[in-house]
Amino acid sequence: MTSPATPAYDELTHTFTRMHHLGHLQSMANWDQAANMPPKGNAARAAALAEMSALLHRMQTDPALGQRIEQAAQEPLSDPQRANLREIRRGWLAATALPESLVQRRSLATSCCEHAWRQQRPANDWAGFVDNFRPVLAVVREQAALLAERGAVSRYEALMDQFEPGLRCATVDRVFGQVRQWLPDLIQRVTEQQRSRTIIEPTGPFALAAQRALCERVMRRLGFDFDGGRLDVSTHPFCGGVPEDVRLTTRFRDDEFLGSLMGTIHETGHGRYEQNLPRDLLGQPVAEARSMAIHESQSLSFEMQLGSHPGFVAQLAPLIVDAFGAQPAFAPDNLQRLLTRVKPGLIRVDADEVTYAAHIILRYEIERPLVEGEIEVEDVPALWDAKMAELLGVDTRGNFRDGPLQDVHWPEGLLGYFPCYSLGAMYAAQWFAAMRRAHPDLDARIASGDLALVFDWLRDNIWTQASRWTTDELALRASGEVLNPAHFKAHLEARYLA
Amino acid sequence: MTSPATPAYDELTHTFTRMHHLGHLQSMANWDQAANMPPKGNAARAAALAEMSALLHRMQTDPALGQRIEQAAQEPLSDPQRANLREIRRGWLAATALPESLVQRRSLATSCCEHAWRQQRPANDWAGFVDNFRPVLAVVREQAALLAERGAVSRYEALMDQFEPGLRCATVDRVFGQVRQWLPDLIQRVTEQQRSRTIIEPTGPFALAAQRALCERVMRRLGFDFDGGRLDVSTHPFCGGVPEDVRLTTRFRDDEFLGSLMGTIHETGHGRYEQNLPRDLLGQPVAEARSMAIHESQSLSFEMQLGSHPGFVAQLAPLIVDAFGAQPAFAPDNLQRLLTRVKPGLIRVDADEVTYAAHIILRYEIERPLVEGEIEVEDVPALWDAKMAELLGVDTRGNFRDGPLQDVHWPEGLLGYFPCYSLGAMYAAQWFAAMRRAHPDLDARIASGDLALVFDWLRDNIWTQASRWTTDELALRASGEVLNPAHFKAHLEARYLA
Repeated sequence: MTSPATPAYDELTHTFTRMHHLGHLQSMANWDQAANMPPKGNAARAAALAEMSALLHRMQTDPALGQRIEQAAQEPLSDPQRANLREIRRGWLAATALPESLVQRRSLATSCCEHAWRQQRPANDWAGFVDNFRPVLAVVREQAALLAERGAVSRYEALMDQFEPGLRCATVDRVFGQVRQWLPDLIQRVTEQQRSRTIIEPTGPFALAAQRALCERVMRRLGFDFDGGRLDVSTHPFCGGVPEDVRLTTRFRDDEFLGSLMGTIHETGHGRYEQNLPRDLLGQPVAEARSMAIHESQSLSFEMQLGSHPGFVAQLAPLIVDAFGAQPAFAPDNLQRLLTRVKPGLIRVDADEVTYAAHIILRYEIERPLVEGEIEVEDVPALWDAKMAELLGVDTRGNFRDGPLQDVHWPEGLLGYFPCYSLGAMYAAQWFAAMRRAHPDLDARIASGDLALVFDWLRDNIWTQASRWTTDELALRASGEVLNPAHFKAHLEARYLA
Repeated sequence: MTSPATPAYDELTHTFTRMHHLGHLQSMANWDQAANMPPKGNAARAAALAEMSALLHRMQTDPALGQRIEQAAQEPLSDPQRANLREIRRGWLAATALPESLVQRRSLATSCCEHAWRQQRPANDWAGFVDNFRPVLAVVREQAALLAERGAVSRYEALMDQFEPGLRCATVDRVFGQVRQWLPDLIQRVTEQQRSRTIIEPTGPFALAAQRALCERVMRRLGFDFDGGRLDVSTHPFCGGVPEDVRLTTRFRDDEFLGSLMGTIHETGHGRYEQNLPRDLLGQPVAEARSMAIHESQSLSFEMQLGSHPGFVAQLAPLIVDAFGAQPAFAPDNLQRLLTRVKPGLIRVDADEVTYAAHIILRYEIERPLVEGEIEVEDVPALWDAKMAELLGVDTRGNFRDGPLQDVHWPEGLLGYFPCYSLGAMYAAQWFAAMRRAHPDLDARIASGDLALVFDWLRDNIWTQASRWTTDELALRASGEVLNPAHFKAHLEARYLA
């Protein structure tokens, strides 16, 4: 048997396997920093992580890599290998578009802004924030311009592309444009209808050990593999680690448990995606999760589609009683009402499933012209106030703290990310619509405690597909269509207006 | 002001700072592997750690490094810089003495032997072990020969040198030769004297949460800085992490707490050494702990010199009562008797402070001729039996499991390490003798709960000295003499025959 004539491709995969191994240490150190690290360890950790970032960046921008990519393109590759080469090229183009000096300036500006923001937000200090955010915006615009040139897209599209490859403003405009038409009315009808409901609040305190045990029990029921992962505590919950060892975090308060429980279910969706990525090509870009919108579609499939499904909530109820003892609030109907309460509010991360999209549309409509240079930072508060009034009917004037200062994304320079959250919610609705077409008994099966249909569908159509296809192809193959917000609308109407 | 004319030295320190940062990620991943990692994470972790080892080894053996060392030697260095250069050169000579192929063969042979040993030890399978250990011994002899050539020392000395730089067999022979003369007689007198003592055993179970809280409380009293470190659980307790973030581990059993508590005190000694290494040169070899014998002298200063000091035990007693409630066994006198029970036994790690040295002398007298090629593996059991009978008066014939199969060091190829344990115990006695000369009220101060004299002495004389001096110079500066086992003898006689 002759050896395959793909020397350049083989060399590429070898390099990416090495980067995967080194990235493993980086991921674990990041997780440890959030979950374990004592305060005096921070400076050494930051230096170690910076050293590794620089090392990986050098490997990723090695000019020899570019040559190998061109050589590999001429080699007789299989379809999955060709998909891997596509992802390798995409990463190489993005990594080499930015000079090291810009990456460093960006890092300095965002560190400084994020650090100051921690004080400025509670102090409601918009003017102080603007001083630190202006340099962030300048370097982000510069970055966007360089990336845009590379990808022949607009500057904002170039930023979105880092998180959701191939996403264009035409798509976001189409989708958000549709949602914008029906959302304010839907919110009004739902809040109207819910006004007459009575809801019993759970009575605390809720012992932390019992909360942790409950979360782990629910994670097991949701198929999380504890032989290949853990649940720990951090200030900001996230899904970290590596596919072979997934580290989820949550946080506990003793006066409230549903937030932590649903947050854990959310992270479990991310975690199962990671745990079920294809193992044969692990370490290669084609075996990584497709994108942030698709990742979010998994966490929201778990948290929203499944986690607040009345059939699933009825399964949760006895576990909650086991954890904390019986309470009237723990009746399945009441739990379901607690989980589906709709109330326009100021804070995105506290928003319910219905009003959430309004928070995202608002941010998209502000940060896009901000990146494109059509507006300036000084224009943000007035736009924020107007759009909050228009979309959610709330008054935010003068309240910067719970307005444009509320998210860490802007101080960290992560413009272009927000759309992924809502696209994720829409994809999740689209996946469940496809499941229901394939399995008309889906809801009955969920209500019976049998979640295999859900997990099998997600595994076959999303998790194991990883980055084999573009997002549009992935959606098409999984659900027969590209992103279609009609499923999200139908889901909200069925759950909230039925 | 002109810049110092030390370009080569500056380049060297820059390289070592980079290696310190990358080594940080390696240390944390090692700790996590023992303390947190779920089983399915192991293969990915092993691959990641191997990648980092290879990377660090390439940096450490870079021929350019050798040139820089020679150039730096011609530069106008300060004394601490010159000490750093000495340590850098020592590491470079050791790292470059071994070809990569030998390092890999060694790793394969020891992995295979250690893996099989886990089954062979409980199965008492000496013959099976010999088959796997023969290749380990062959590659260790090869390694020793190459290192010996580099350092102009004997083969066994070359192995010891990796753990205790500068240690020669003449020293070990002198010291162990003296101990050998008085130890069997001392053991006999102590066991004779203890025969009539009555000891009350503590009654369990001991709740794990209470044990953990007790350990942390004692660690605080011993000055461990929890803002720069943690205590966690692993199968084999160790002191890991980095000086800026020290990760100690212990293990708990619910039927016994003293082993875990004293083990934690032991690791706290290692931990305080690491936490108090000099910060101004951190990352440079001169700022690392001096050696394994000196490291062990710190853990044994804490565990034995201090931890079993009657004055300190009287301070421990109320904390133990706080943790588990009052028991007759927790009277200070009884605790002291529990901690100073002397009984010749088969197992090194279970040995008391008095008989421990016999286990080490026996291993030294076997592994040294084994490395030098004067004996073969087949000769080990008979030598083991004879020396155990001679030194401890116990019969080990046919019991390989609790004989030459008991330690992980040989399967892992760590020949030359054992002497460090006993030298550490002797140095610890020597440090406390020096403290008593400087502070005649030392024992009264310890009994009053004031440990500042102990910690200040160790900080000034050992911890902050790091690798500034050779071990002999360090001992001389700290205590006025090089290693002198008379202090160890005096300590044992004072504590066990008084």
